[in-house]
Amino acid sequence: MLKDVQGQADFRRMPLKHVGIKNLRWPIVVKDKAKGEQHTVANFTLAVDLPQELRGTHMSRFVAVLRDLGTIHPSGLESILDTLKENLQAKKAMLEMDFPYFIEKTAPVSGEKALLDLNCHYRAEKTDKFSLYICVEVPIHTLCPCSKEISSNGAHNQRAIAKLEIKNAGMVWLEELAAMAEKGASAPIYSLLKRPDEKFVTEQAYATPRFVEDAVREIALAMAQDKRIGWYRVTVESMESIHNHDAFACIERD
Amino acid sequence: MLKDVQGQADFRRMPLKHVGIKNLRWPIVVKDKAKGEQHTVANFTLAVDLPQELRGTHMSRFVAVLRDLGTIHPSGLESILDTLKENLQAKKAMLEMDFPYFIEKTAPVSGEKALLDLNCHYRAEKTDKFSLYICVEVPIHTLCPCSKEISSNGAHNQRAIAKLEIKNAGMVWLEELAAMAEKGASAPIYSLLKRPDEKFVTEQAYATPRFVEDAVREIALAMAQDKRIGWYRVTVESMESIHNHDAFACIERD
Amino acid sequence: MLKDVQGQADFRRMPLKHVGIKNLRWPIVVKDKAKGEQHTVANFTLAVDLPQELRGTHMSRFVAVLRDLGTIHPSGLESILDTLKENLQAKKAMLEMDFPYFIEKTAPVSGEKALLDLNCHYRAEKTDKFSLYICVEVPIHTLCPCSKEISSNGAHNQRAIAKLEIKNAGMVWLEELAAMAEKGASAPIYSLLKRPDEKFVTEQAYATPRFVEDAVREIALAMAQDKRIGWYRVTVESMESIHNHDAFACIERD
Amino acid sequence: MLKDVQGQADFRRMPLKHVGIKNLRWPIVVKDKAKGEQHTVANFTLAVDLPQELRGTHMSRFVAVLRDLGTIHPSGLESILDTLKENLQAKKAMLEMDFPYFIEKTAPVSGEKALLDLNCHYRAEKTDKFSLYICVEVPIHTLCPCSKEISSNGAHNQRAIAKLEIKNAGMVWLEELAAMAEKGASAPIYSLLKRPDEKFVTEQAYATPRFVEDAVREIALAMAQDKRIGWYRVTVESMESIHNHDAFACIERD
Repeated sequence: MLKDVQGQADFRRMPLKHVGIKNLRWPIVVKDKAKGEQHTVANFTLAVDLPQELRGTHMSRFVAVLRDLGTIHPSGLESILDTLKENLQAKKAMLEMDFPYFIEKTAPVSGEKALLDLNCHYRAEKTDKFSLYICVEVPIHTLCPCSKEISSNGAHNQRAIAKLEIKNAGMVWLEELAAMAEKGASAPIYSLLKRPDEKFVTEQAYATPRFVEDAVREIALAMAQDKRIGWYRVTVESMESIHNHDAFACIERD
Repeated sequence: MLKDVQGQADFRRMPLKHVGIKNLRWPIVVKDKAKGEQHTVANFTLAVDLPQELRGTHMSRFVAVLRDLGTIHPSGLESILDTLKENLQAKKAMLEMDFPYFIEKTAPVSGEKALLDLNCHYRAEKTDKFSLYICVEVPIHTLCPCSKEISSNGAHNQRAIAKLEIKNAGMVWLEELAAMAEKGASAPIYSLLKRPDEKFVTEQAYATPRFVEDAVREIALAMAQDKRIGWYRVTVESMESIHNHDAFACIERD
Repeated sequence: MLKDVQGQADFRRMPLKHVGIKNLRWPIVVKDKAKGEQHTVANFTLAVDLPQELRGTHMSRFVAVLRDLGTIHPSGLESILDTLKENLQAKKAMLEMDFPYFIEKTAPVSGEKALLDLNCHYRAEKTDKFSLYICVEVPIHTLCPCSKEISSNGAHNQRAIAKLEIKNAGMVWLEELAAMAEKGASAPIYSLLKRPDEKFVTEQAYATPRFVEDAVREIALAMAQDKRIGWYRVTVESMESIHNHDAFACIERD
Repeated sequence: MLKDVQGQADFRRMPLKHVGIKNLRWPIVVKDKAKGEQHTVANFTLAVDLPQELRGTHMSRFVAVLRDLGTIHPSGLESILDTLKENLQAKKAMLEMDFPYFIEKTAPVSGEKALLDLNCHYRAEKTDKFSLYICVEVPIHTLCPCSKEISSNGAHNQRAIAKLEIKNAGMVWLEELAAMAEKGASAPIYSLLKRPDEKFVTEQAYATPRFVEDAVREIALAMAQDKRIGWYRVTVESMESIHNHDAFACIERD
């Protein structure tokens, strides 16, 4: 019988907030609004707390939990945390996952369909109460109102990232958050555009100039009006086409 | 005279928490404990708040502030924030900077000296009161106590990162935080080791086995005993040599 | 009818080696040796050549090709290139894809099974002849022979990456390349190890010390003996546990 | 006296192409066209070959070479390689370094000056003959000719990266390569622009529409006309503002 060194008593009187594993990639299946489910790959962090009396945790049990994952849905994360708490005899469990999520976008004129990738991040925690934080990064197009106003022709524009964060909201699909993000855009972004589509989005962006300050306000307005969403934070970062750095703006509901 | 679009009135009743620039790389000079100063390169975020009445900020003024930077010292960041507040007519200013900082390490037997790079992150904010958050990532060496205990020979060990975070502390040198990080290590890490040094650190690590749970507690004990440090958080992440993922542990002072 | 600007004549006498798209993420299904197929996510580059007479290519057609992908198998990449050549009226087509590929590893004592992620890279090209380059990065464990020899106890060890590259080989499964990589290791790497497994791999690594120089030679020997493999290059990079930089060695068959 | 394990004989008949260290960050001073010299931070790879008879190399000597670096100038890299060859008794030495290099840009109307960061990469090799490869990444602004032509107003534009690679050229300053890159741009990129500058570059970009195909050809023409440059390769990658992927084009002189 091999000695359980992790199970030794600890006398340093230092409880751990988190102990666990990070940067574990694992294929997952997530709920998809349109198609039922979608396959993707996530980078996982799994952790529990550790009381001051115990020296260590049992790391292999975190990986064992991943082996039993079924289709992942935000509301199902709570049971994963319950399993972690039980298997690791902990009072608190935490899970983070980062993954690309693909939504289908339809080009505005040609109707061509293609996938667009969003970066998603979930952080779920449970002591007694379950808490869920969701962040989705939606690529959008912004066109500078100042550049348009002062220039005789054209206006600088660029790809931007709208980062929408919510906490403990009712069930909100990633597709719905993406739609809110596009409310702040000069135009949405697509993976496949034919020439008539390109004309359309170019003119749409020119007709809808938005600073990062505007974009973030428009998105925040959409989020504020959604009854399911309590706390939110919105950040828009634009990869300025006239600079080698980014402009950004952020609104956070108190 | 070109129209000031940013200066327009805004009626959306949405004040911005932050508006500014990100990912601007800039060469800097920072205070160095041993040599007076050191040249390095930082990635900057600079931002201010924006009241709900104003449409936008003037982004070029953030860059202008960087042009006038002298040697950077934590205590001097307040005056940069004051300048930002004044130049952008803001109530709040924020600055983040990430940069590698080099400390000289002396090999334990041969006495050979070489530089070791630490990742540093500062976040300074000021509304009325100045607030400074510092994070330094120190590479350390950890050797697994369980692996040593149960194996007839050897023990798996690996490079780990100790991340030390403090907020509103008295003046603490990055070199001092690095020294605290090494208290949690099985052995420190060096850029240049001759054979007698390699023997020394191998034996030192074997004699000092540390889980991430141990490492983080030892570092937290050192930080807790330092009168200059109020709030702290310590995280140790080890790039497990037997896995393709990392183990981590975290202690945060309430 | 919108004007075809890309189709204009060009008089600069500068043929393009490549024109196309990069950094397009797309979910894929790849052939899996054990399970038939596996879902993952790839980052794609797709390109063709462009003769000097033509101003531009039609970027949307690259994305359209991705929409029709079925299950991906190395030998099936040729038909994707043929489609690209045809749809874009090109003489040459090129495709690169990076994706994590998961293999199941069985722990040496407990028999526990869990997935291990490998970084894979394919580059396929076709003018008249089809050419395929494959690179797979396999995480391994290396233990330093010098450290073991000179130290009274223990030896420093670490995670390393074995990068195996082959070109125009016969059909070789990624699982087979992973097995060759492990021939160079002090021990393989697993995602899930129970205590008896940890004892096993610790002792295995201590009994099999390997410099990066040794590891790369052992892997090259395995590759040289495989009749299906013509050209190869092997690189092993170890994240030295006693340093904050990596050691590496590389062998390339002429 | 500690045993020299690296110095043992090897019987596997496998000479190594490269053995050395990677990912070592080190502060450097490089020659600067305008100011004489500039401080920055590099990521180094240093390696030598290893004959089949020898088991290993002495890694600490690579780091020792970095300690003695003076101001770095492309033509001075040869002597570093000579030192590596001598100190490691090798026939071949190789050095790679990646670093940000800052050039001062002057805004076109206001005359305001600010730094712009370029990513630079050197690879120097020497067996008998010294060989030097230089790559510089210059951020530029591209505006789509198709979007301009077909749209009633505006045109999508974005930040792009022009990657200029040369090998064994005569002395060419990074500033000169940056100037060639801007020849392919719809407009140059600046860190600090006042309103009249923004008007200027917006109109300049609108008046100078460039596909990546155009940009790469214009830059290649500039490089082809430079007598100091033999081999070159130019790639332009644009972060398309209407997509979440990049468009790219590449020309390589045979």
